[in-house]
Amino acid sequence: MADFELLQTSHAGAALQGNVHAPAGPGPHPAVLVMSTAMGMGDLANNACAALAREGYLAVATDMYGGGAGFVDDIEASAKAIGPLMTEDGLLRARVVHWFEAVRALPNVDPARVAAIGYCFGGQCVLELARSGAEVTAVVSYHGLLTTRAPARPGAIKAQVCAYTGRLDPYAPRDHVEGFRDEMIAADARFHITELGNSWHSFTDPDAARVPVPGVQFDALARDVSWAGTLAVLKALC
Amino acid sequence: MADFELLQTSHAGAALQGNVHAPAGPGPHPAVLVMSTAMGMGDLANNACAALAREGYLAVATDMYGGGAGFVDDIEASAKAIGPLMTEDGLLRARVVHWFEAVRALPNVDPARVAAIGYCFGGQCVLELARSGAEVTAVVSYHGLLTTRAPARPGAIKAQVCAYTGRLDPYAPRDHVEGFRDEMIAADARFHITELGNSWHSFTDPDAARVPVPGVQFDALARDVSWAGTLAVLKALC
Repeated sequence: MADFELLQTSHAGAALQGNVHAPAGPGPHPAVLVMSTAMGMGDLANNACAALAREGYLAVATDMYGGGAGFVDDIEASAKAIGPLMTEDGLLRARVVHWFEAVRALPNVDPARVAAIGYCFGGQCVLELARSGAEVTAVVSYHGLLTTRAPARPGAIKAQVCAYTGRLDPYAPRDHVEGFRDEMIAADARFHITELGNSWHSFTDPDAARVPVPGVQFDALARDVSWAGTLAVLKALC
Repeated sequence: MADFELLQTSHAGAALQGNVHAPAGPGPHPAVLVMSTAMGMGDLANNACAALAREGYLAVATDMYGGGAGFVDDIEASAKAIGPLMTEDGLLRARVVHWFEAVRALPNVDPARVAAIGYCFGGQCVLELARSGAEVTAVVSYHGLLTTRAPARPGAIKAQVCAYTGRLDPYAPRDHVEGFRDEMIAADARFHITELGNSWHSFTDPDAARVPVPGVQFDALARDVSWAGTLAVLKALC
């Protein structure tokens, strides 16, 4: 894994920690927030950051829980950490926007070229960022949770929105995909939805089987296609 | 445009001509059939072939009408040429399979690594190739026609099937996309479907506006994303 520096910030009483993977050179760089699964910060986000830094992006793995927490395979600890973000109205969206503004304010970042990608819960996070109306250029969700408490208002979304979703993903079933699509159309958003016909949840994660929940499986082709599409979007827009 | 050689073949009374763009070296190479729109052979297919040859693939722009015909913006000539392929039962599929076997038999092609991509009518062609049960590794359709006279039988499709389709494409409306998806599921095929939420027909073609039909528009982002996904699939499977 590439070297990274810590970025400390706080939000609503939580001391948050980001891992900043910077490309070579002084910048200003385009930037990408990389938002973790419900299991917190881990290899998936940090490896993506390292790959993005090699492509010229300043990439930040963002901790949504506090203390840089990562729970690997501890479902109970994850559920306890995520609880307030899922139940307190507006907290999740506010925290994501806080992270976006923190990355955007870094002195070596071009604030007009900031995107966000996320996995599972992190996919939900980046979609919430887009729904907020933030000036983010693009968001990409991989096997993300597609529902929301506050659907996007017409015209609110400024980002290109991309979602890669497995047909067999029990956490993003067909009616959620359809609802998300309807939301994007009603919001007059720019969007792409890729349905991976034979993929389950966590298809990007070579260690998917480590997390003891049903419906997860790595899919190398789905991972490769979603990553290639992501780089194409970032190169065009960010 | 890169240099190419002609490949002559004939099928059901039509003298067909392919443009073979070969990569450097003796091979055997992986190969890709590149199938043209209803307007016949033109820049879109030949430029894609040149790009694929640079990536190491032997790419063949395949003439489905005879004589290497390309009609540019002559809708009447196109309609006349395409007529028999759309009305004579089985002719379209048989001609595509004929082309596949012709490319596969080239001495510098690895017959186990042959894929096919196609635009509009060419998208329909590559989907028919997959439905035929041919030993093609992957097919990719861009703004392709998704309906068929003979839906794939369960287990018949050996290829990874990818379709990129514009939500606003009048030639692939929502019910066609849904029907295609249902067909792929019923056939137990491996498939990806990307819905490009703001794209029209012919989104890959910078000269889309040249063809005087409604519902066409170039979309650079959709072109870039579909091409990136295609290369990812080809690199993984071909």
